[in-house]
Amino acid sequence: MQVDLNSDLGESFGRYTLGMDSDIIPLITSANVACGYHASDPLVMAETVRAAREAGIAVGAHPGYPDLMGFGRRNMVISNDESYAYALYQIGALDAFLKAQGMKLQHVKPHGAFYNMAAKDPAQSEAICKAIRDYDPELIVMALPAGELYKTAKAMGLRAAAEVFADRAYEEDGTLVNRKKPGAMITDEDESLRRIIRMVKEHKVTAITGRDIDISVDSICVHGDGLKALQFVKKLRDGLTAEGVDIKPLREFV
Amino acid sequence: MQVDLNSDLGESFGRYTLGMDSDIIPLITSANVACGYHASDPLVMAETVRAAREAGIAVGAHPGYPDLMGFGRRNMVISNDESYAYALYQIGALDAFLKAQGMKLQHVKPHGAFYNMAAKDPAQSEAICKAIRDYDPELIVMALPAGELYKTAKAMGLRAAAEVFADRAYEEDGTLVNRKKPGAMITDEDESLRRIIRMVKEHKVTAITGRDIDISVDSICVHGDGLKALQFVKKLRDGLTAEGVDIKPLREFV
Amino acid sequence: MQVDLNSDLGESFGRYTLGMDSDIIPLITSANVACGYHASDPLVMAETVRAAREAGIAVGAHPGYPDLMGFGRRNMVISNDESYAYALYQIGALDAFLKAQGMKLQHVKPHGAFYNMAAKDPAQSEAICKAIRDYDPELIVMALPAGELYKTAKAMGLRAAAEVFADRAYEEDGTLVNRKKPGAMITDEDESLRRIIRMVKEHKVTAITGRDIDISVDSICVHGDGLKALQFVKKLRDGLTAEGVDIKPLREFV
Amino acid sequence: MQVDLNSDLGESFGRYTLGMDSDIIPLITSANVACGYHASDPLVMAETVRAAREAGIAVGAHPGYPDLMGFGRRNMVISNDESYAYALYQIGALDAFLKAQGMKLQHVKPHGAFYNMAAKDPAQSEAICKAIRDYDPELIVMALPAGELYKTAKAMGLRAAAEVFADRAYEEDGTLVNRKKPGAMITDEDESLRRIIRMVKEHKVTAITGRDIDISVDSICVHGDGLKALQFVKKLRDGLTAEGVDIKPLREFV
Repeated sequence: MQVDLNSDLGESFGRYTLGMDSDIIPLITSANVACGYHASDPLVMAETVRAAREAGIAVGAHPGYPDLMGFGRRNMVISNDESYAYALYQIGALDAFLKAQGMKLQHVKPHGAFYNMAAKDPAQSEAICKAIRDYDPELIVMALPAGELYKTAKAMGLRAAAEVFADRAYEEDGTLVNRKKPGAMITDEDESLRRIIRMVKEHKVTAITGRDIDISVDSICVHGDGLKALQFVKKLRDGLTAEGVDIKPLREFV
Repeated sequence: MQVDLNSDLGESFGRYTLGMDSDIIPLITSANVACGYHASDPLVMAETVRAAREAGIAVGAHPGYPDLMGFGRRNMVISNDESYAYALYQIGALDAFLKAQGMKLQHVKPHGAFYNMAAKDPAQSEAICKAIRDYDPELIVMALPAGELYKTAKAMGLRAAAEVFADRAYEEDGTLVNRKKPGAMITDEDESLRRIIRMVKEHKVTAITGRDIDISVDSICVHGDGLKALQFVKKLRDGLTAEGVDIKPLREFV
Repeated sequence: MQVDLNSDLGESFGRYTLGMDSDIIPLITSANVACGYHASDPLVMAETVRAAREAGIAVGAHPGYPDLMGFGRRNMVISNDESYAYALYQIGALDAFLKAQGMKLQHVKPHGAFYNMAAKDPAQSEAICKAIRDYDPELIVMALPAGELYKTAKAMGLRAAAEVFADRAYEEDGTLVNRKKPGAMITDEDESLRRIIRMVKEHKVTAITGRDIDISVDSICVHGDGLKALQFVKKLRDGLTAEGVDIKPLREFV
Repeated sequence: MQVDLNSDLGESFGRYTLGMDSDIIPLITSANVACGYHASDPLVMAETVRAAREAGIAVGAHPGYPDLMGFGRRNMVISNDESYAYALYQIGALDAFLKAQGMKLQHVKPHGAFYNMAAKDPAQSEAICKAIRDYDPELIVMALPAGELYKTAKAMGLRAAAEVFADRAYEEDGTLVNRKKPGAMITDEDESLRRIIRMVKEHKVTAITGRDIDISVDSICVHGDGLKALQFVKKLRDGLTAEGVDIKPLREFV
């Protein structure tokens, strides 16, 4: 049994600092690094990649919509060609910092509204997967296992990593419960932990309806934006380790 | 005898079209493609790289200051670390489109104020050359032969291509005469042509003072922003060919 | 009988030129000037306002989504508060150039996807109208007469100007036929002219279904992005004048 | 005896928070609000202006270079026309939020590198002062009393407010000692306080050379970016009040 822990990093920009990157890096195995469209800038990217290299964790590109003011969280109606080109641009931009430090890009995980849109739209998923494949067919696509991006990646013969969330409830079809609905967030840490361990060991989770559903897990998304979040990650690591789960980067097992 | 003809391409942005890329592409051997900081966007980059591939010409990255409103022509006082990171980001972003189309990036030529600043500042030149070397030590640095960027590239063991201008006067030290000074621009086409041919064949040019100076030439910068400019490029090609000069991309001889 | 002719101006940006502003200005009575979010920059705004003042035409603000790369034509899911604040910001920014030249802002017309979204969404229309009212309750809101923005402006006691399009077909409910549907564009100039004259004189237009519908007309949107477009505007002016229609700015009759 | 306390506010952007605006607002009399070029966005501007109104403090525009990535702290070589237009754009954009809340803009203080450039360049100072005058000749120009912007404002008949810094050493000519030079920063709080009180009461300050120079004071720049900074502002308020100095906004006495 093995699992990857991923977190969104490198989201600072210019004079603005976001996240506690140096605290979360030692606790995770894969970093999703913002690429300058919804967050980050070249100095931040250089520094984040360097910190990841020093900690020995894997790095993925975290491309988003070109919307710094909205942090890539607002849906934008862009064409498939635009999704292809925006993904490719951002992957290459980030990978430059990895190449410069002798590292190899491990995965790509779209950010925010770009991630959510891709989970629902097969044509957009195909555009994004083509960008990934055209750049490097060895790259792993990190996505919601019940979503279109995951399915498309598999169908195109790409390596896909199933991502789960410790703090989110699931619908019966494996999609995330809309944040606006009651019960969408799992706020009890012990419950989160139990759910995650069951997902990793049994590939099962209880949907919001009360019914158990199947779920694939390659990576768990964790947050580093506060002391409470960091403590939960430590607890999660301890819990997983106690259950005999190896925590290691995707590249070692996907 | 051989020389490369280069031109700045891919400078359109969103709804805005700039340059006559499809007309100039068949006339040149190397395209300097803007990377999204001073001009261009991912769709334009994808399309420009595709057109270059189809025409069989070489492609270089043309990184600039992050100043779309000023088209990268306004000096910005940025740190060496920023120059390093901005160059690396843009090189990687553009190279993604080449990788996706099975091409290899040939060279890097900084744009506008970034080019002029680098020509004068050894520390900034070192930062830019480090970005180029860290990305790919095989890349050719295209620069003013009398400038600091060219010298630094050579000193760091990188391949450097000496760029000359058909329409600019030179000082005795090989630098370009400031555009604000009288005589800075060579407006007579026949004179331009004679000067270029002499530079290529004899490695000499007459400085604005009237004295002959030595000059290296690997590539001639030409423009495609109007019918007159295009006609001059044709004339230049014919003139060089008539003199027995081979026109071919830098990668074949630098 | 009277009508205003409006056109979108000041859409150039930095090194990029768009439209033939100096040619269209003498032919229209109201200019919708871009405000720097989807197009334009402060130098362009200063120059466009100056040209409008010299020609004696009225000026309105043309606020759009913060999406220069997409020219404000891509829908973005923003909150009502964001619509309010983005409209207010852009109106104030443009009005500064009018104040500096002793002019009074006449109207506000949202741009592109912002216009289309407002036509459909009552809550967003209310946010935009609040921004306009909070800035200056005398401002005229220019909008599709069958759309929500027009209705909301009227309901809030603001002055509203009904805008029609010479080159677009209408549904029976007065909305524009989607550009992707056959027959959406009126390509025959004589037909366009006849339709416009009927709209102005009889307040009627034949919908795409063949049925006549009522339509209000205060302003006709015309384009200045080519010689053909300019010639049509001249033809339209002549046609309207021959029918005894006065062509004058909104502020004189709305 | 009277003095204004000013601070730079509204520097958050999108998802990024900067400064402790709600803590510093009750301690100051004038807020310099960023206008979206080097920091801030329309939502932040709306909220900052609202908070200033509720606290009864005055608001000024704080225009900067169009350089969000560099927070307006990097010098950019822009033309006088650009300075004029960039200042005008930003003043109007901010003032829209004041108009919407029934407030009147009190002053304009350029930000960062724009402030420093203006202090040294008479032609640029004239461009900026023209923008201010053309917008509203009643506006107060806040500037370094020994700098060109202050002189130009006075010479053009504008109201000018002399700004001093509690934590900075002065050269004999009244300019600020370059931050890179030893002794440039006054780190001892008691010394800062003594210097400020002497400036306000005697219009004198000891330059870095040890010699006393004359200095005008209308406003003291304070910072709200940390608990220590906030405590110093409280100490400064208490110290000034104990000396019989009235702390009130510029509009009441300049």
